[in-house]
Amino acid sequence: MREKVLTQEELKKQVGIEAAKYVKNEMIVGLGTGSTANYMIDELGRKIKEEHLKIIGVTTSKATSKQAQALGIPLKAIDEVEYVDLTIDSADEISENFHGIKGGGGALLFEKIVASYSRQYIWIVDESKLVKQLGAFPLPVEVVKYGAKQLYRFFENKGYHPHFRTTNEGKKFITDSGNYIIDLHLEVIANPIILGEELDKFVGVVEHGLFLNMVNKVIVGTKKGLRTYSN
Amino acid sequence: MREKVLTQEELKKQVGIEAAKYVKNEMIVGLGTGSTANYMIDELGRKIKEEHLKIIGVTTSKATSKQAQALGIPLKAIDEVEYVDLTIDSADEISENFHGIKGGGGALLFEKIVASYSRQYIWIVDESKLVKQLGAFPLPVEVVKYGAKQLYRFFENKGYHPHFRTTNEGKKFITDSGNYIIDLHLEVIANPIILGEELDKFVGVVEHGLFLNMVNKVIVGTKKGLRTYSN
Repeated sequence: MREKVLTQEELKKQVGIEAAKYVKNEMIVGLGTGSTANYMIDELGRKIKEEHLKIIGVTTSKATSKQAQALGIPLKAIDEVEYVDLTIDSADEISENFHGIKGGGGALLFEKIVASYSRQYIWIVDESKLVKQLGAFPLPVEVVKYGAKQLYRFFENKGYHPHFRTTNEGKKFITDSGNYIIDLHLEVIANPIILGEELDKFVGVVEHGLFLNMVNKVIVGTKKGLRTYSN
Repeated sequence: MREKVLTQEELKKQVGIEAAKYVKNEMIVGLGTGSTANYMIDELGRKIKEEHLKIIGVTTSKATSKQAQALGIPLKAIDEVEYVDLTIDSADEISENFHGIKGGGGALLFEKIVASYSRQYIWIVDESKLVKQLGAFPLPVEVVKYGAKQLYRFFENKGYHPHFRTTNEGKKFITDSGNYIIDLHLEVIANPIILGEELDKFVGVVEHGLFLNMVNKVIVGTKKGLRTYSN
């Protein structure tokens, strides 16, 4: 019998459905942003409809809010709840020691805020996101508009190979908070902790895409099936 | 002969005029925000009109832009210049070792951005602003709107006595970048460096009002005359 080879899209769907199993009745659930998270949100929508699951969603982007509303998931803002039971989100890169890069979708700030107030935090990815060391994926840095070019030049002088993120129309991408994103093409991040502290200190940096020591569980879709790692 | 006792307002005006002496022809000048800085900007306007001083101003707030424009000072945004020769700004509190608290006027983010790219940085204050240790003046922290209440609760639990800054109409104050300000009533800041690093790390904190190791010169208006300190 020939094994069916799953596409990346099918792997994403599988982990999305698997992650939704961790969502229990009456939970307040942080809903991540991105293509893998979308499958998880679709599955929660199905469970609400077909299995009478009752949850409150806390969204991490305008895009996710729209999807969740269409599915009939009741929503609250992060400031309307006391805490979040569980947040499920995707990631752009995960290292062997469970550090991650997020922000490929541009929602890193709200994603980090919701994750910060979550009791449990799960990442769902396909196996292409697992790396030995972070850095091949460009690191997104959300920056205040005023002085953004000065910051860009500063990153350039540091050898961080910055690029302003742009829209398909070639305009500077604007985040849900009204800021720019500068992607740093670093190739290898030798020490994410030190880089994170450095970026935190720069004036004009609102937040960066290094999610360090935050995740509790990682669900990975591989061609040989699902794998779950606990941190 | 009886000495004339100067009011606080007269002291502010004196240091404003004194600071304007450091502005030379063809300079790119960062223009601070607040009542003391206003006197300095008025004096620059007078020099442009009466003494044909030629400068370009880089402003730190919408309020300062308005004042400078009315005085005929040519303006550029921080991203339109390569660097700033000299920034002159006021401060809310200055410690013995030249650390400062700024942001009483709500413009700390743009003020810090402009100061970061300035070759020289001068503070102008009346003597009431000089303190042994920082902290009696509430420390402003500019925070992202999303999750601001969570952050407030977090500050409360840390014993930082947070207060959302409000307008005269009782609404939450909004900064020029569209964020909130939480003022921390700390009374004494034992170690500003460590507190600054801690605040930099918090998710949702855009910037804080601790200006550490930034200033080169402080001009102080005292009842016995002007005093200038170099750092």
